[in-house]
Amino acid sequence: SKYEYVKGFESDDALPSGNWIVVRIQGRDFKEFADLHGFQKPNDERALQLMDECAKAILEENTDIVCAYGISDEYSFLIRRGAHQQASNELISATVSLFTSKYVMLWPKFFHDRELECAPAFDARAVCYPTETTVRDYLAWRQVDCHINNVNNTCFWKLREQGLNPSNAHKTLMGTRSSEKKELLSNDFRIDYNALPAKYRKGSLLVRKYLCIYFQPDQTIFHYHDFDVIGDDFWKEHSYILQKARFS
Amino acid sequence: SKYEYVKGFESDDALPSGNWIVVRIQGRDFKEFADLHGFQKPNDERALQLMDECAKAILEENTDIVCAYGISDEYSFLIRRGAHQQASNELISATVSLFTSKYVMLWPKFFHDRELECAPAFDARAVCYPTETTVRDYLAWRQVDCHINNVNNTCFWKLREQGLNPSNAHKTLMGTRSSEKKELLSNDFRIDYNALPAKYRKGSLLVRKYLCIYFQPDQTIFHYHDFDVIGDDFWKEHSYILQKARFS
Amino acid sequence: SKYEYVKGFESDDALPSGNWIVVRIQGRDFKEFADLHGFQKPNDERALQLMDECAKAILEENTDIVCAYGISDEYSFLIRRGAHQQASNELISATVSLFTSKYVMLWPKFFHDRELECAPAFDARAVCYPTETTVRDYLAWRQVDCHINNVNNTCFWKLREQGLNPSNAHKTLMGTRSSEKKELLSNDFRIDYNALPAKYRKGSLLVRKYLCIYFQPDQTIFHYHDFDVIGDDFWKEHSYILQKARFS
Amino acid sequence: SKYEYVKGFESDDALPSGNWIVVRIQGRDFKEFADLHGFQKPNDERALQLMDECAKAILEENTDIVCAYGISDEYSFLIRRGAHQQASNELISATVSLFTSKYVMLWPKFFHDRELECAPAFDARAVCYPTETTVRDYLAWRQVDCHINNVNNTCFWKLREQGLNPSNAHKTLMGTRSSEKKELLSNDFRIDYNALPAKYRKGSLLVRKYLCIYFQPDQTIFHYHDFDVIGDDFWKEHSYILQKARFS
Ligand SMILES: Nc1nc2c(ncn2[C@H]2C[C@H](O)[C@@H](COP(=O)(O)OP(=O)(O)OP(=O)(O)O)O2)c(=O)[nH]1
Ligand SMILES: Nc1nc2c(ncn2[C@H]2C[C@H](O)[C@@H](COP(=O)(O)OP(=O)(O)OP(=O)(O)O)O2)c(=O)[nH]1
Ligand SMILES: Nc1nc2c(ncn2[C@H]2C[C@H](O)[C@@H](COP(=O)(O)OP(=O)(O)OP(=O)(O)O)O2)c(=O)[nH]1
Ligand SMILES: Nc1nc2c(ncn2[C@H]2C[C@H](O)[C@@H](COP(=O)(O)OP(=O)(O)OP(=O)(O)O)O2)c(=O)[nH]1
Ligand SMILES: O=P(O)(O)OP(=O)(O)OP(=O)(O)O
Ligand SMILES: O=P(O)(O)OP(=O)(O)OP(=O)(O)O
Ligand SMILES: O=P(O)(O)OP(=O)(O)OP(=O)(O)O
Ligand SMILES: O=P(O)(O)OP(=O)(O)OP(=O)(O)O
Ligand SMILES: [Mg+2]
Ligand SMILES: [Mg+2]
Ligand SMILES: [Mg+2]
Ligand SMILES: [Mg+2]
Ligand SMILES: [Mg+2]
Ligand SMILES: [Mg+2]
Ligand SMILES: [Mg+2]
Ligand SMILES: [Mg+2]
Ligand SMILES: [Mg+2]
Ligand SMILES: [Mg+2]
Ligand SMILES: [Mg+2]
Ligand SMILES: [Mg+2]
Repeated sequence: SKYEYVKGFESDDALPSGNWIVVRIQGRDFKEFADLHGFQKPNDERALQLMDECAKAILEENTDIVCAYGISDEYSFLIRRGAHQQASNELISATVSLFTSKYVMLWPKFFHDRELECAPAFDARAVCYPTETTVRDYLAWRQVDCHINNVNNTCFWKLREQGLNPSNAHKTLMGTRSSEKKELLSNDFRIDYNALPAKYRKGSLLVRKYLCIYFQPDQTIFHYHDFDVIGDDFWKEHSYILQKARFS
Repeated sequence: SKYEYVKGFESDDALPSGNWIVVRIQGRDFKEFADLHGFQKPNDERALQLMDECAKAILEENTDIVCAYGISDEYSFLIRRGAHQQASNELISATVSLFTSKYVMLWPKFFHDRELECAPAFDARAVCYPTETTVRDYLAWRQVDCHINNVNNTCFWKLREQGLNPSNAHKTLMGTRSSEKKELLSNDFRIDYNALPAKYRKGSLLVRKYLCIYFQPDQTIFHYHDFDVIGDDFWKEHSYILQKARFS
Repeated sequence: SKYEYVKGFESDDALPSGNWIVVRIQGRDFKEFADLHGFQKPNDERALQLMDECAKAILEENTDIVCAYGISDEYSFLIRRGAHQQASNELISATVSLFTSKYVMLWPKFFHDRELECAPAFDARAVCYPTETTVRDYLAWRQVDCHINNVNNTCFWKLREQGLNPSNAHKTLMGTRSSEKKELLSNDFRIDYNALPAKYRKGSLLVRKYLCIYFQPDQTIFHYHDFDVIGDDFWKEHSYILQKARFS
Repeated sequence: SKYEYVKGFESDDALPSGNWIVVRIQGRDFKEFADLHGFQKPNDERALQLMDECAKAILEENTDIVCAYGISDEYSFLIRRGAHQQASNELISATVSLFTSKYVMLWPKFFHDRELECAPAFDARAVCYPTETTVRDYLAWRQVDCHINNVNNTCFWKLREQGLNPSNAHKTLMGTRSSEKKELLSNDFRIDYNALPAKYRKGSLLVRKYLCIYFQPDQTIFHYHDFDVIGDDFWKEHSYILQKARFS
């Protein structure tokens, strides 16, 4: 029709070639969502397992994703350098849409006794990282964040259990470092932070298994809970993860 | 942490100021999805009502949307010129995520007897239209598409009912115009195309009601089924829809 | 060759369709350049005429430019809505390159006795304006800036002539409004600001003449010195300038 | 002023972080320009030296440029990964403007007896390359192009000298490979292609010298004429060129 010219206003938002791409999705207003649905504090086992299972569905759908890292209400998907180039819009929207779809569909599997009382929603962004160093630093950034938040939240909710109101609990923690918070947990609550479940302390890592010789993507997904993407050891042992770039 | 510099790689994908913005979402592989879930052909009343109700939720959430137009597996949301500027990524992802969430949650309300057998997903894009003319041409483009597709699909499925296989049904229709298809419906099937439900022929329009004097957004949403956004009459009678731009 | 794939990394930076586009070029380090070449203060007649003549060359080259507005070391070129769409990169670079080329070539015509002692350079940007209102506000913005700067500079150099050092001249003017500065000129220096050459007070406007009936671009360029793009009168009398958009 | 809001329409076109950036400038309509100014065919020594000297001025101005490669009417500037990030617009426009300015100013130094008869202009683009491999492939692409064009042009002008008209000269060469063209030169014209000046066969490479220990940029620029950026040897011997990235 004579109106078709308006299609020409669509912009081609191709992501720059040859970069690693991270798609990060994260829950919108999940503080409220968690409260409304009685999430356990600071970590709700069911909520985290649900996130992991939705993320797995994304890896199954998009075989260019080499790994994914999740904490709290967020998940980051790492798309290998050299993957078939996609419009940013389409990549982001299709990823977040499928994730959300799965989240609602799988909800009853993890929250048996709880109705979904409002519609959960996520936002998404795509970020380009040009080198292995920046990709590793990205993952390290998220894992350091996981650590900082989890130490803090663990203390916060222990103080609240003890009877402090939110404002006083915040005041007690304000300005303290993670190491001091760990000591507080140990001294005041007899909690050895490092003995808490690794999943809460480290986040959740999904890695696609590759058939080593041909670098063919495979649908086997490994799930790590106790791992450290900040140091070098993990990357030495799993060097294949970042080896699948077409342009090296 | 020292890794925070990686946040700096996120690009600021602000949409150009002062344009009308259309967010269009549309189902991924909905041909397959429709078949799998036994959608009626060519139009499934339940599926269309479900789309409309999801779209309503989007208008309730984002009060900068002045109207929305839906056909088949797609919906377009029109955001008024001069609305608070948003990153394209966030706008697209939050919109498609909430739509999908609603789609899965509301599914049982419309498909009583049907389980959802796979996860529905949509993609989304944002397009800028600088003028009222281009906005109107956009909506006209979609409504003309609705007409062309619906005349064609109506014929196609009538021919199939009659026993033609897909390939022969296609051949029969190939190269014919919409007017010829309407005659075929009339002559061979005694169907007056214009008497079919307006909703299937025209698509579905949601319009936000405004308190006329102050142009305050309101949560009342009008739902139109028999309307024509291609000609001038509709826009004369509803001139307020496009009058809410900050820069005129 | 097998290396040609690298061409694929070039991004298509198309400007959004259907907007007015302003290309603004402006001199880099022109304070230094003006001092080095003994520009008269606050306005050097030769420098301004040189800018105007370079701008004229740009209008002759690119017939989609409807008008251009210059002050000090800058020039803005307004490209009509609906012009053949161009890559932003190419538009910006070709415009600024031709302008610079002309600036150096025409230098001796205006600065007879002065060698060019260093290479003048300009930067350029392209900005999209979706509506007539924003286009007019853009031009008004530049002309208001012209006024503010010129009143200020006129006072500043009068005070300097009188013997004040730069720091004291600045102090005297700091915090005063344009109207107060005009009074100072009148009271202390017997200068009627409004009687100074319009060109310095208003800037320089080039307008392409159009053959009225066919809206065919024409190579006749009008040159205005005493005009006001802030109020409505100019635009009423010259309504044809903004009437050449394909999408109205 | 109340019009300042229009500045908000300027888009922030930051180049993606952490990539190598190539700015390529190239002459507009240089076929015509070369003819008009009597450039020698296929290579004009003066024209090439002028290009080199303009490029040197760019390296002197922007110390983030590690090397530059020129052929015919084009020059590519390689900006090191990790350089201070710049708006694409500003980088492109300032580079091409200074280059053009120099071109006009230095013209009489190389073309003693020739007036500049029209204004030369260049366009420019910026392209991101994420890895050393893609950067090397970029330079290889340009050098292969140099070779292909130069072999072809050398043959073409020999055939023309011999009396063939343009159309017949083209026909003679059409479909032949570079190796066949070299044989034609050898057999028909007694020209050993490999003995022609390296500068015409290889292009022109400018490399910034670095103080090796501190990787401080330095204003010493090396100028290579006989070199091969396609193979590995050059890069082994000059590994420091690509070693100055902040993110490795
Ligand atoms: N109780 C509980 N809350 C959780 C859990 N995981 C995530 N949350 C909630 C608490 C956090 O405040 C919130 C994530 O923080 P965000 O910074 O993403 O805030 P929120 O999603 O509320 O706002 P946003 O829309 O992302 O700006 O999600 C959990 O396992 N248990
Ligand atoms: N039976 C039936 N099918 C429908 C209805 N509404 C939409 N569909 C299906 C049939 C169409 O082929 C499909 C929409 O066409 P598209 O061009 O969007 O194709 P599809 O979604 O399969 O692929 P895509 O991922 O969008 O490229 O959705 C309906 O009411 N009834
Ligand atoms: N004496 C004199 N100077 C002028 C004239 N026109 C422009 N200029 C100089 C003085 C101003 O400081 C300068 C323009 O101001 P800008 O804000 O553009 O500063 P400048 O170009 O130095 O720095 P930039 O690279 O643009 O950030 O140009 C003139 O007619 N006479
Ligand atoms: N005679 C002669 N011509 C040269 C020399 N260097 C460059 N040229 C001319 C001849 C080539 O056709 C032209 C470069 O080819 P391009 O593909 O860049 O074409 P041109 O600049 O004409 O068009 P464009 O505006 O870049 O699309 O420059 C030279 O040393 N001698
Ligand atoms: O913009 P495209 O090319 O993705 O086209 P589309 O309108 O999304 O259509 P399709 O359903 O073919 O992706
Ligand atoms: O939106 P926030 O504050 O949860 O955090 P963010 O999304 O990382 O920040 P931004 O939206 O500013 O990128
Ligand atoms: O990128 P394009 O299409 O402009 O191609 P180019 O490399 O600039 O070549 P041309 O000289 O044809 O503009
Ligand atoms: O660069 P300036 O400070 O002369 O002024 P500008 O170019 O208008 O500002 P910016 O470069 O920040 O857009
Ligand atoms: Mg959140
Ligand atoms: Mg979060
Ligand atoms: Mg598509
Ligand atoms: Mg679809
Ligand atoms: Mg569709
Ligand atoms: Mg955010
Ligand atoms: Mg300046
Ligand atoms: Mg200036
Ligand atoms: Mg080109
Ligand atoms: Mg050229
Ligand atoms: Mg060229
Ligand atoms: Mg600037």
